Amino acid sequence: MNDSNRVVLLVGGVGGAKLAVGLADILPPECLTIIVNTADDFEHLGLHVSPDLDTVMYSLAGVANPDTGWGVAGDTFQMIDMLDSYGGPTWFKLGDRDLATNLKRTQMLREGKTFAEVTQHLSEALGVQQQIVPMSNDSVQTWIDTAQGGMAFQEYFVRERWQPEVKAITFRGAEQAEPAPLIIDALDQATLIVLGPSNPYLSIDPILAVSGIREYIEQAKASCVAVSPIVGGKALKGPAAALMAAMRVEVSPLGIARHYDGLLDGIIIDTVDRSLCAQLEAGGLRTVALNTIMNTRSDKVELARQLLRWAEEDLK
Amino acid sequence: MNDSNRVVLLVGGVGGAKLAVGLADILPPECLTIIVNTADDFEHLGLHVSPDLDTVMYSLAGVANPDTGWGVAGDTFQMIDMLDSYGGPTWFKLGDRDLATNLKRTQMLREGKTFAEVTQHLSEALGVQQQIVPMSNDSVQTWIDTAQGGMAFQEYFVRERWQPEVKAITFRGAEQAEPAPLIIDALDQATLIVLGPSNPYLSIDPILAVSGIREYIEQAKASCVAVSPIVGGKALKGPAAALMAAMRVEVSPLGIARHYDGLLDGIIIDTVDRSLCAQLEAGGLRTVALNTIMNTRSDKVELARQLLRWAEEDLK
Repeated sequence: MNDSNRVVLLVGGVGGAKLAVGLADILPPECLTIIVNTADDFEHLGLHVSPDLDTVMYSLAGVANPDTGWGVAGDTFQMIDMLDSYGGPTWFKLGDRDLATNLKRTQMLREGKTFAEVTQHLSEALGVQQQIVPMSNDSVQTWIDTAQGGMAFQEYFVRERWQPEVKAITFRGAEQAEPAPLIIDALDQATLIVLGPSNPYLSIDPILAVSGIREYIEQAKASCVAVSPIVGGKALKGPAAALMAAMRVEVSPLGIARHYDGLLDGIIIDTVDRSLCAQLEAGGLRTVALNTIMNTRSDKVELARQLLRWAEEDLK
Repeated sequence: MNDSNRVVLLVGGVGGAKLAVGLADILPPECLTIIVNTADDFEHLGLHVSPDLDTVMYSLAGVANPDTGWGVAGDTFQMIDMLDSYGGPTWFKLGDRDLATNLKRTQMLREGKTFAEVTQHLSEALGVQQQIVPMSNDSVQTWIDTAQGGMAFQEYFVRERWQPEVKAITFRGAEQAEPAPLIIDALDQATLIVLGPSNPYLSIDPILAVSGIREYIEQAKASCVAVSPIVGGKALKGPAAALMAAMRVEVSPLGIARHYDGLLDGIIIDTVDRSLCAQLEAGGLRTVALNTIMNTRSDKVELARQLLRWAEEDLK
């Protein structure tokens, strides 16, 4: 492994966080920057809740709940249980330890700290050495138009369990939002940019929609690769496959490659989809088939190791 | 017991809440109104925290922590523990279940509900049938001038463990604050007004300072009695005795009687202070010596029963 590798990883929640853990195991901490979707953030119980950011932070800190991928390992739900007595709302299950993160973040934001500064404080406090950066200090909100009307992301995703049929997705405020300060430098200095195995529509697109980020990636010296979140015609988690079907996009790494058209130099697909390699290569993308299903820690590290080796050997 | 008794009890936290529990055991729910000090309220972690109100509410709901008198029985402290990782603040020990109360209250206040409405919602949700009323819907803040400078009540009481020498106590906003809507009616209809065994300076005085409340009590048809919080020359809990000494007031029921000069028709003192009965009676106050130390539920009920009987027989 070349120590001069500088990797920028773009992610949403659980899937991307797994790859972040793998990369963090291999790269020196200063060589990994993770840009996280914050368009799912919402105000709940007066708190600024950042589900993706916290999933990445807890994962890198080694305190994530291993069963769900989000929330804090061993967390309790005394607050939510009591809140139920008061008539809720209880649809968003904030754990008691998780509450501390949200209370502290909200307090620091009210004190005038930027979102990136708050994120750095929280992640350093938990012992995270890598740079976790929210995509912007400004507010961007994913808005979902569904057959049941418009709703904010968490209402669609958690409250409605992503069952309503999606008509359109917009990122309110994205055009006016500036990339968080560290992002441009990180992209400038990157040797590799990785779009994590996250939902392209709901996790990666909002990051790319922030004013300038897509253009910086297109112009960057570094190669850009994506890890397909679609494996064997299904999403490993969440609504990616359902969204692609609703948008009449082929539910396969081919659909992913097409979605990221103009951005990618290469794509990592799962071994079960290896028959698609030739077609992807013919479309101009360097392609590698690896085990992308990260159930264990060693799965995560192994995917990261092979991804980096492939990028170094085959993308130059 | 005469069912046409209508009692209004003025209280602060733990001591007053014990008497409230005793009275609640005897009186029909609609015949007991508890007016609670809210000048100790403060904003903490962005939440509106009301320590006295919650102590009374949890006590009447039967969910108060029996060891401390405040907080929720069996509560956990996962949030505070995690917040410690982030650098706190942890000096105010909000339990996880207690957090739900504070989150819900803060949210309802932000939605435009009055403080009295919020209090009614929370206490009804916990099954409390008596009327718990904050002294005002408006903000009043106890401010303590000490030898170490000025500080808000909770800073003095919790953070500094009431060790700084007190120079003066003021209730900021009290003159502009209106009594909460139910208070005037309750005082009008009362057959007995009881100043609970709470700190006169820090718990009862702020209620009396709210514009008009003292005058309504003075003019009320009902008799007004106080339960002395000083027993055998000491406060049962908290800084009352230290404050009286600092103010060169006699630390005894005589000092309490003098403090409430002009308000009282009678006073309940502890049996250990019974030698003071004659002096108090000579000063124009009907006086009774009872066991005022409420360790057990039956202590609370017994004090309430004897207090009501005495008021009915000796105060008319």
